[in-house]
Amino acid sequence: MHYTKLEIKDLNRVKRLRLMNSITGIKSANLIGTISEKGCTNLAIFSSVVHLGSNPALIGFVMRPNKDVKRDTLDNILETKQFTINHVHSTFIEKAHYTSISFNHDQSEFDYCNLESFYIDNYLPPFVKESKVKLGLKLNEIIPIKSNGCKFIIGEVEHILIDDSIDFMTEGALNLEISSSVGVGGLNSYYTMNKIIELPFPRLSTNPASDMNEFFKSNFDIFKQ
Amino acid sequence: MHYTKLEIKDLNRVKRLRLMNSITGIKSANLIGTISEKGCTNLAIFSSVVHLGSNPALIGFVMRPNKDVKRDTLDNILETKQFTINHVHSTFIEKAHYTSISFNHDQSEFDYCNLESFYIDNYLPPFVKESKVKLGLKLNEIIPIKSNGCKFIIGEVEHILIDDSIDFMTEGALNLEISSSVGVGGLNSYYTMNKIIELPFPRLSTNPASDMNEFFKSNFDIFKQ
Repeated sequence: MHYTKLEIKDLNRVKRLRLMNSITGIKSANLIGTISEKGCTNLAIFSSVVHLGSNPALIGFVMRPNKDVKRDTLDNILETKQFTINHVHSTFIEKAHYTSISFNHDQSEFDYCNLESFYIDNYLPPFVKESKVKLGLKLNEIIPIKSNGCKFIIGEVEHILIDDSIDFMTEGALNLEISSSVGVGGLNSYYTMNKIIELPFPRLSTNPASDMNEFFKSNFDIFKQ
Repeated sequence: MHYTKLEIKDLNRVKRLRLMNSITGIKSANLIGTISEKGCTNLAIFSSVVHLGSNPALIGFVMRPNKDVKRDTLDNILETKQFTINHVHSTFIEKAHYTSISFNHDQSEFDYCNLESFYIDNYLPPFVKESKVKLGLKLNEIIPIKSNGCKFIIGEVEHILIDDSIDFMTEGALNLEISSSVGVGGLNSYYTMNKIIELPFPRLSTNPASDMNEFFKSNFDIFKQ
């Protein structure tokens, strides 16, 4: 099957949305929590959260254009300069999914979608209590994307809260199968994960060139030839 | 477990990389294919590909700062204004992973990692033949991220090639379990997907408010109370 640019444009809207949203592969499912200056909380599911760097610890996400719908998440971030990112787990996918409904500004998704808020000292926005992995960020940069009016929102991580009741950390990294964190495919399909392999990471070597040669010879079949 | 900003900064480098790269959840595994003006091909694995919009069909990805390593992918994109994005499947994870090794400019990852290139008429860069989902893009915008020197590269989709030998499209959307497309957790853990649920998508309704009320009452338990 080969779609050209013109054929993509000529698809009906729903088909194009379904194709284009699913074509890039799996996306992380995260709930972004915010609060307005007046104290109204908001919670919204996003599938565009992306790692930007570890030192400083930066994370970005894409906000759709706000021409036709209100964007409480963005308004609240502009007011308080803070937001939380919370993993969605297989136990509360429906509740998380329906945060995407357009509620009124004074209707909190925490109430309507039956999720519990959780706060820490000296930090304004709500975390999602049900999430085993909660991040508290400070707004760093908002970048307008000229191509289609989206905004790329960048925050620095100020807090990482990890539920230690389940051991899903291996040498400092999260095991997403054990944490039962879910991913999104397309607009509305949810997936759980099976960890199938962990491979050595070349960039972490202090002396890449020599180590890699050794590594190739001993481990990687195609370099044995 | 609660890490503050200072505690994240004080972690040793490898631990911080492992924590920060895994903390945002699952990421799609895609191979980006490019070619230089002189005809040297390059292939590199990226976990930061993100959907930006469907009309026009826009996709972005994050490029790390190029201060200490050469970035053949970026150089080639600047030369030809084109790049391909290709799904990684469970059948060739190792080959895809080791494209992250620093090869010389004239060493093609296609050769060294034993993946086959695939071309279409009137389009320069190589696709990955083994990928069941191949996208051909045209460079649209390169956005510098001030916070840490990364670049956000945006392209418009000009070609979508989908292997029709396996039926993994449902009403226009990809089923990532059937296509055996894989995801990355952290730096080096690979996951396959189980599709567990597909939910209605509120934004696709033509009359959200009224439809949603009906929908809530009939389908969503928490709205029955």
